[in-house]
Order: sequence, then C-alpha cells, then structure tokens
Amino acid sequence: MSSITLYDFPLSGNCHKVRLLLSMLDLKHERVPIDVVAGQTGSAEFQRINPRGQVPFLVDGEVGIWDSMAILVYLARQHGTNRWLPNDPIAETGVMQWLAVASNELLSGLARARAVWRLGSPFDREQCQQEGRAGLALMEQRLEQADWLAANHPTIADLACYPYAALADEAGVSLAPYPAVIDWIARVEALPGYVPLVERESNAG
Amino acid sequence: MSSITLYDFPLSGNCHKVRLLLSMLDLKHERVPIDVVAGQTGSAEFQRINPRGQVPFLVDGEVGIWDSMAILVYLARQHGTNRWLPNDPIAETGVMQWLAVASNELLSGLARARAVWRLGSPFDREQCQQEGRAGLALMEQRLEQADWLAANHPTIADLACYPYAALADEAGVSLAPYPAVIDWIARVEALPGYVPLVERESNAG
Repeated sequence: MSSITLYDFPLSGNCHKVRLLLSMLDLKHERVPIDVVAGQTGSAEFQRINPRGQVPFLVDGEVGIWDSMAILVYLARQHGTNRWLPNDPIAETGVMQWLAVASNELLSGLARARAVWRLGSPFDREQCQQEGRAGLALMEQRLEQADWLAANHPTIADLACYPYAALADEAGVSLAPYPAVIDWIARVEALPGYVPLVERESNAG
Repeated sequence: MSSITLYDFPLSGNCHKVRLLLSMLDLKHERVPIDVVAGQTGSAEFQRINPRGQVPFLVDGEVGIWDSMAILVYLARQHGTNRWLPNDPIAETGVMQWLAVASNELLSGLARARAVWRLGSPFDREQCQQEGRAGLALMEQRLEQADWLAANHPTIADLACYPYAALADEAGVSLAPYPAVIDWIARVEALPGYVPLVERESNAG
C-alpha cells in the first residue's frame, strides 16, 4: 500500500487546490508543513526532496510530483474517476483550457496581487489585478451559461480556479462585477468534502 | 473531414510550440496571422472567435481551443500517439510537471523578460530573468541525466519548454551556465519536422 504525503503551506491557494481534491476523493494522507515565509522551500533539505523548491509537492509511494496542476491531474487519474478529468480528448481539452487559465491569469494575476499584500512580494500590484480581472471576466462569461467551468459537473478545472478567485478580496479585486463567479464559488463550497483554506479552531474543546 | 486552423503570431514562442507539433505530426492546417503588436487579439472580431483574446488559438472542425498547453494536449491525444503524451498516469504526470514549468518559470520568467525588450511590455525585467533562470536550472538538473525532459524520448513537454529556452538571449539571459540545456536545444532542433520560429525567406526564388 502506498502512502500519500503532501508538503503544504496552509495559506497557499495552490496547496488548497490539492487539499480540496484529496478531501473530495477521501484519500488518507499526511501533511508536512513547509513555512514559505520563513524560506523553508529554499532549504537544502527540502530541495533534496523537491528540486523545484515550491509547494505543493506530493509524494505517493515512490513518485514525487511538483506543481498543483500536475498533482491534480495525477490524483484524478490515479485515485479518482474520469468525472474529475475525462478521458475523451475533447472533454479533457475543456479541462486543460481552464487549468491554463488557473496557471496564467489567476496565478500571475490574482495570486501575485495577493502575495504583494500578504508576503510583501515585489510585483506590480495594479498590473497583476488587471490580469486577474481578465481571468474573472472569462470565467464570468462561461458561468453565465453553465454551472461548472469545463463540464456539466465539477472537474479539477473548478478546483484549480477556485482558490484564487475566492481570495480575490485579498488581491484587492472586487468580485461584484462577476455575479456568476460568486454563485459558482458558493457551489464549489457546497461540494461534499469541501474544506476551507485554513481550518477553523474546533469549537468542541 | 475536419480542417485545422491556427490563429498565429509568427514571433510568439507560444505559437511556435503549436507550429512545432503540427509540423512533427504532419497535420495539414491553415494559419491565420493575428498581429499582437497592432492589438488584433483585443479586437471584437477576434474575441468573438476566442473570448480569451490570446494566441495561439486552434480550431479543429467544431472545436476551438485556447492556450498552447491545452492545444498541445489536444493535438497529441486527437491526432498524435501516446509517445507525445503517455496514457499511463505516472508517465503522463511526468509530462504535466514540465508543462507546468513551461507555463510558470519559462512563461512568467523568460517570455516576459523577452517581451520587455521586444514589445516594450511593462514587467520588471530583472525579476523575470531571475524566475527564468530558476526554470533553466531545473531543466539543467534533469538534462544532465537524461536526453529529454519527461521520458526517454521527446514528448510535448520538450516542445512546451523549448521556444522560450531557445530564445533566452532575447530575454537577456545567457545559457552558458546550462550546457545540458544547450545540448537539448540542439536535439530538439534536429527532430524530424522541426520548423524554426520565423521561417527564412526561400533561397529558391
């Protein structure tokens, strides 16, 4: 039996994508916290495990995988069903198109604009916000006509695009012009197995 | 019979990725030039065809696909063989990891540093170069041990990473510290069906 380990930074939207799918697939796993702010991704110890030096990084038995997009594809194929990532080339391409938007407009745009505020990253915030808004406008156009980004049911495309869209306020971008995106965020958050970005302290103590 | 149309900007490295695979798969297609510098990607006419408003954009019969990564996946699945993109989940993930590097370190790094020089884009060139060098260092580490990025033969991972690595000088980044990358660039350029970024004027006239 292989065992799954996720190298994880709790505040990272990219890590959140992976935690969402792990939870929705109900996959047992261990989480190893890596403190990005303290520079742990750049440590020799972590780079021996992951030469790319970024989180999320997933280990499943003998296999190590960098990048949230590659991890989502891997988990869907290896542990999921083709509802999360279809095998049919045209349906698969529909998912890939939105994974590309997640890696471009949303990551170079919204995630970086958020990192300026949260981590003091040296990006041009206004430029990032403008790029992020282009991604949200594209999502809005799709979600005015459909409940989910790439199919008539949730796929990894929705999980890849969700975190930084849902964190748009931390990027200084209002979602008010994107009502269909707001409704879609609520649908993602209502999915079985949804977990929030940072788990709240238990009330049960 | 479906017909393939590529909306294309000759100087774009992202478009070059697609032209490479179209040529290596020997797929007949039409090319429609879109002048990015003149703002044609933002025109209402182009956005009716492609709401994302970027090139490359590929139309195959009834299907329209944005983003070079999604187009490479589509062409490999629909018109290629599983040598270009394996079906086995672990081998497929190996390709996806490098598609992610192509969309992140190489695109946010090298392509943007090049765009500062070539298009006057308003990015912080030094920051982009630093990100690009991180991508090249990661490729170097792999290519010191293997001829190709994701398998023991070329895959779409190589075509996705090639253009902006080969154009590093236009990004103001020297390849001298990455000799294994230099050798790999030569291997890509020796593949059957390779076409250069900008086709030279014919000598035959």
